[in-house]
Amino acid sequence: MIPQTLKKLIFELSKLPSIGERSAYRIAYHLLSKSQSDIKALSSAIIAASESLHWCSVCCGLTDRDVCDICLDAKRDAKQLCIVERPSDVFSLERSGAFRGLYHVLHGVWSPLRGVTPEQLTIGKLVARFDAERKLESDPLSTNVDEVILATSTTVEGDATALYIASELDHYGVSITRLAQGLPKGGELEYADDVTLGLSFEGRRKV
Amino acid sequence: MIPQTLKKLIFELSKLPSIGERSAYRIAYHLLSKSQSDIKALSSAIIAASESLHWCSVCCGLTDRDVCDICLDAKRDAKQLCIVERPSDVFSLERSGAFRGLYHVLHGVWSPLRGVTPEQLTIGKLVARFDAERKLESDPLSTNVDEVILATSTTVEGDATALYIASELDHYGVSITRLAQGLPKGGELEYADDVTLGLSFEGRRKV
Repeated sequence: MIPQTLKKLIFELSKLPSIGERSAYRIAYHLLSKSQSDIKALSSAIIAASESLHWCSVCCGLTDRDVCDICLDAKRDAKQLCIVERPSDVFSLERSGAFRGLYHVLHGVWSPLRGVTPEQLTIGKLVARFDAERKLESDPLSTNVDEVILATSTTVEGDATALYIASELDHYGVSITRLAQGLPKGGELEYADDVTLGLSFEGRRKV
Repeated sequence: MIPQTLKKLIFELSKLPSIGERSAYRIAYHLLSKSQSDIKALSSAIIAASESLHWCSVCCGLTDRDVCDICLDAKRDAKQLCIVERPSDVFSLERSGAFRGLYHVLHGVWSPLRGVTPEQLTIGKLVARFDAERKLESDPLSTNVDEVILATSTTVEGDATALYIASELDHYGVSITRLAQGLPKGGELEYADDVTLGLSFEGRRKV
C-alpha cells in the first residue's frame, strides 16, 4: 500500500546511522510535508558536500581544498601531533579547545574481526609524514614533532591501533602519549564501570 | 575550521525531526564516507518522493496517483471510515492489520496554541465526502458510511479535534466512535499514569 517512491526514500534514509525504521518513516513524512525548495536545499547540500569535500593531503582530515585550514594555520603548534580515528574526532577536539597542535586522521581502527588491517588505515601516510619532516642535517632520525598524542577510542580496537602506531613511530625518537582515561566530568563513582574505576586509580594525580 | 559545504549539510540535516546536532554530524560524516553513487541514491530518492507524492483526491493520504490504492480497493469495507491525523498514521494502522475500512487524513489537529484552525484541516473535504455519498433517493441524510472511527491522538488537541469532527458529522446519522484508551499491551500498572489508569477502569470490559 506504500507508494514505491516513498518506500525507496524510507529505505535510503534507514541506511543512515542512528536512524531506525520508525525514524526513517518520520523523517520521510516530514520531508514530504516541506516545500519543494526545502527539499532541494537538503538534497543539494548532500551533493555539494560530497562533491566538494575530500581528504586533506597532509592530515587526511576533511577539507574542501588541497590542504585543510588546520594544517595551513601557522599559529598552531607543529610540535604536537594528535592521531584520531575519524574526521569528526578532529571537530570534537577543536570544539573542546583542548588541543592547539596538528592532527592525523586514520580513517578507521585496526579491527581483525571486521577485516580492517593497519594497511587500510592512513598509518603509511603518517610514517611518510615523519620521514618527510626528518631534519636530515643534524640527526637523520629526529623530526619537528616532539609529541604524538594517540587519541584513538578507548576500546580494544582503539587500544590495539594505538599500540601499533606507537611501535611504528618508535624509532623516530618522539614522545608518544595516550589520552588520560578515568572518570568523566560530572561522573559519579556509583555509575562508573569497574575498568574505568581501576584506570582512574591507576592514573591518579597529586592535587 | 569546518568547511562551508559540510556546515550547510549539517544545518540541513539538523532540521529533520529526531535529529539533533550530534546525529547530524554523525550522518554527515557517514554520508561523506559513502561512494558518490550511494549519495546520489539518497538525494534522488528524496527528490523523486517529493515530486511524485501528493494527497489522494479522496482520502488526502499520500499517493503517487490521483486516488490511492486503499480508496480504490473494492475489497475494503466502505462502511467504516477511520479519521487520522497524518498520512503516517494510515501506514501504522495498515501495519497493525486492525482495520479494513477506508481512511480520511486530516493533515494536522486543531491547535489554537499553534494557530491551527479546523478550517486548515481537511474537515471540509471530509464533510464534502459525506455530502457526495448521500443516498439522495431514500433518505437525504444517510450515507454509505455506517461508522466513523476517530483515531486522532489521545492528547488534548486530538480529543478536541475528535469532538469537533463528531459535531460536524452529527446530522449524518452515522455511528461515531473513538479508539479505546487504556493500558498498552505489555504495560504494567506500576508504570501507567493516573489518567490512563482511570480511562482503563472506565472502559473496562466483561471477560
